[in-house]
Amino acid sequence: MAENLPGRRLPRVVILGGGFGGLTAARTLKSVPVEVTLIDRTNHHLFQPLLYQVATAMLAPTDITAPIRWILRNQRNARVLMAEALSVDVARRVVLLDEGAEISYDFLIVATGSRHAYFGHDEWEADAPGLKSITDALDMRRRFLLAFEEAEKCEDDALRSAWQTFVVVGGGPTGVELAGMLPEIARGALKNDFRRIDTRQTRVILLEGGPGILVAFPPELSLRAARDLAELGVEVRTNALVTRIDQDAVYVGGDRIPARTVFWAAGNISSPLGNWLDAPLDRAGRVQVEPDLSVPNHPEVFVVGDMAAVVQDGQLVPGVAPAANQEGRTAAKNIARTLAGKPRRNFHYFNKGNLATIGRSRAIAEFGRVHIAGRLAWLMWLGVHIMYLVGFRNRLSVLLQWGYAYVTYQRGARLIAEAPAGRTGRPVG
Amino acid sequence: MAENLPGRRLPRVVILGGGFGGLTAARTLKSVPVEVTLIDRTNHHLFQPLLYQVATAMLAPTDITAPIRWILRNQRNARVLMAEALSVDVARRVVLLDEGAEISYDFLIVATGSRHAYFGHDEWEADAPGLKSITDALDMRRRFLLAFEEAEKCEDDALRSAWQTFVVVGGGPTGVELAGMLPEIARGALKNDFRRIDTRQTRVILLEGGPGILVAFPPELSLRAARDLAELGVEVRTNALVTRIDQDAVYVGGDRIPARTVFWAAGNISSPLGNWLDAPLDRAGRVQVEPDLSVPNHPEVFVVGDMAAVVQDGQLVPGVAPAANQEGRTAAKNIARTLAGKPRRNFHYFNKGNLATIGRSRAIAEFGRVHIAGRLAWLMWLGVHIMYLVGFRNRLSVLLQWGYAYVTYQRGARLIAEAPAGRTGRPVG
Repeated sequence: MAENLPGRRLPRVVILGGGFGGLTAARTLKSVPVEVTLIDRTNHHLFQPLLYQVATAMLAPTDITAPIRWILRNQRNARVLMAEALSVDVARRVVLLDEGAEISYDFLIVATGSRHAYFGHDEWEADAPGLKSITDALDMRRRFLLAFEEAEKCEDDALRSAWQTFVVVGGGPTGVELAGMLPEIARGALKNDFRRIDTRQTRVILLEGGPGILVAFPPELSLRAARDLAELGVEVRTNALVTRIDQDAVYVGGDRIPARTVFWAAGNISSPLGNWLDAPLDRAGRVQVEPDLSVPNHPEVFVVGDMAAVVQDGQLVPGVAPAANQEGRTAAKNIARTLAGKPRRNFHYFNKGNLATIGRSRAIAEFGRVHIAGRLAWLMWLGVHIMYLVGFRNRLSVLLQWGYAYVTYQRGARLIAEAPAGRTGRPVG
Repeated sequence: MAENLPGRRLPRVVILGGGFGGLTAARTLKSVPVEVTLIDRTNHHLFQPLLYQVATAMLAPTDITAPIRWILRNQRNARVLMAEALSVDVARRVVLLDEGAEISYDFLIVATGSRHAYFGHDEWEADAPGLKSITDALDMRRRFLLAFEEAEKCEDDALRSAWQTFVVVGGGPTGVELAGMLPEIARGALKNDFRRIDTRQTRVILLEGGPGILVAFPPELSLRAARDLAELGVEVRTNALVTRIDQDAVYVGGDRIPARTVFWAAGNISSPLGNWLDAPLDRAGRVQVEPDLSVPNHPEVFVVGDMAAVVQDGQLVPGVAPAANQEGRTAAKNIARTLAGKPRRNFHYFNKGNLATIGRSRAIAEFGRVHIAGRLAWLMWLGVHIMYLVGFRNRLSVLLQWGYAYVTYQRGARLIAEAPAGRTGRPVG
C-alpha cells in the first residue's frame, strides 16, 4: 500500500461495483503495484444466477452472498468501501460518493450493472417488481408467499382466483427460472398447508412479447424448454405484449388477466453512472466502449459487465456472469500493461456455453454444437452453479437446501416477517 | 372439521400467537373434537432462544423459523390465519382482526407474548432497539455490521472510536448472549477485513442496573458468567442505571459513554391485547390469571406464555420457552377437560433447569442442585437448542453454521442489503 512506499504514490485504481466484473477486476490486480479501492453500496458480492431461488423461498439471502471485504481480506493492496457512487467527474478524475465524500482515481473501472426497465412504464414497478438485488428477491418472496395467505382468507371467488394467479413477464432465463419454480411449490411444498384453498389450482402464466422463450439458445432447445414448462403446468404465451399492469390484472392488448401477483423479468437498463462518463450510450444505456474496454477519449476509464456494450462478430456480448468476469479481467490486465509500458489488448469474449434450468430436474445446455436437455443438463447446471459460488460455507449450505428440497419437495425459506409499520410496510428478510 | 359433522357445530378454539405457548396449545388439541384457529401476524413460529444469533450474523432468519401452517399441516382440526388481532370483545366472544374481519370463539387462548419496554423512555427505542422478532434481529445485524463500515470510512478519531463501541443494556440472558458474541466477531471474523481500523480495538460494554448479571442463576454461576465475559473482553458494569440514550452516547448518571450502537435487553412489557380481557394486570402488563390459567370471571379465556403472570411458591414463573410450552399444554388440556365434563386442573410449573451461553465454548447451567459451568455446560446448551428446534432442515442447517463458525471463527450471515430508499431506509434481510 502507498503508506509503505514513502516518496512515491502508487497509482490509484477505483472500482465501482462488487459484482462479477468489479470483483474479478480487483482480484486480477492482486500482484500489480496499484492501490485498489472497491466501492459498493452493499457489503456483499451477490451470486445473481441463483437470486431467483431466494425469491422462491429455496435459499436464504446469506447462501448466495459473501462480504466483499471478506473475499478480499488477504489482498493487501485492496480496500473496500461501502458507499454509493453518485457521479463521476472524468475531467477532475474523481468519483462523488454519498455523504459528500470524494475519491480520486488514476484509473476507474465502472461495473455497476443494470436495473430492470419498464419500457417507459415505470408506474408498473409497484405492481410488477423486478429481480436484481437481495432486497428485490425478498420483496418477491414476500409477495409470493403472502398471495397464498390472502387467498386462504379471501371470501370472494374471483378475488381468490386472482390471488392464486401468478404472472411472470419476460421469457428470458430469469423469467423462465422463476415461472418454472412456482408450480412445483404450489403443488408440492404447500399442498397440505391450507384448509380453504387448493394450492394445486394455482395458475402460473409466462408472458413473452417475442415469438419464443430463451431465444439465446438454439431453436430446438428453446422449444424443448417451452414444452418442459407446459408439462410443469406453466401457461406459456408468446407474442404477448403487455400493455397495462395494475393491482388487479395484467393486460395483453384487449385481454385482461386477473392476477394479484406479477413479476417482471422483461428488460434491463444500465446503471445511470454511464451518463457521467462523457461517452456514447446505446438504447439500453450501455456504454459503447473501445475494443480494450476503455471509454472513447478516456483511456483511464473502463466499463465492464452489464453496463458495457461490447460488439463481437456483429453481436452484442450477453449480460451474463462469465462475460462480466472476462471483461473485468481484461480491464485489469490493460491497466497493468499500461503501467508496465506495454500496449493494451483487445477484449475477446470466450463463450463457455449456456445453461438454463426449468423447475425440478430439467434444464437445457448449449456448448457450441453440443446441445443437451433434461436431467443430464440439470446435473451440469447444479455442478456449475455450486462450483462458481464463492465460499465453502455457501456451497455446503446451498447443497444442503437443494438436497432437502429435492427429497422432501419442501422449501426451507418460507419466511414472512411482520411488516415494520402496520401491514403495508417494506419487505423484510 | 365442522363441515364434516353436519347437524352439530364443533366448539371453536381461537389461539392468538404462534410462539411456544400458542403452538403447543394447538398441538395439544390435535385429537380433541374442536375446531382450532391459530392466528399470528407473521407466517412463522420463531425459535426465540437463538434470535440473538441472527442479530450477530451467525444464523439466517430461516434457520430459526418454520411456517406455522407447515408445522400444523397434518393436524386436520387446525387452520392457520396470518392476521393481526387488534382487540378482543370478551362480552360478544369475538376477536377483531385487521382489515375489519371478526372471528368468534367458544374458547380463546391469548399467547401474544411481550415487547421490550423502556421504562417510560420510549424515545430511546430509535437509538437502542430491542430483540423480539426477526425484523428486530435484522435491524440489529444491520446496525452492528454497518458500525464497522462507518468506522472504516470515518476521518475523525473520536467518532471512529464511538463507532467501534457497542453498548448492551441489560444483564439478563439476552443481554449476556449478545454481549458475549460481539468481541469474538470483532477479534475473529472481522480481523483481516478492514484496512484503516483495527477491529480488535472494539469495545463492548454491558450495563446492568442491578447488582449482578444473570440473577436467575445461583450466585456462583452468575459470578462465573461475569468473569467469563470479562475474559472475552466485555466490560461488565453493574449498578449502572441508564439515564439517557441518544444517537452519540449512553449516559449512566453523569458518566457519558460515547457509542453509536446500543442494544436494549433490559425490560419487557406484555402485548397490549391483555388490556381487552377485562382482567387484572400487573406492572409489566401481564394478566393475573387463575390457577387454571383462565382469566377471572371468563373461564372461556386463557392466557399463556410471557403474557401470563403465574405465581408459584411465591415466585413469578419465568418468561422462558419451557414455561410457555407447559402453560399452553395446561390451557389446552383444561379446554378438553371442560368439554368432557371433567374438572380443570391447576397449572404447575416444572423447572427443567436453566442454561445461558457466554460466547464461544462457555455456558452456565443449573439443574436443581447441579450447577455446571464451562465447556460441558456449553455442550449441553448446544444439545438442548438443537433438540428443541423445529424441523430437520433447521437442525441440520444450524449445525452446519455452528460447525463452520467454530472451525473458522467466521460468521456466515454478514449481509447488509442496500437500503430500499436511500441510505436511511428500513432494515432488510
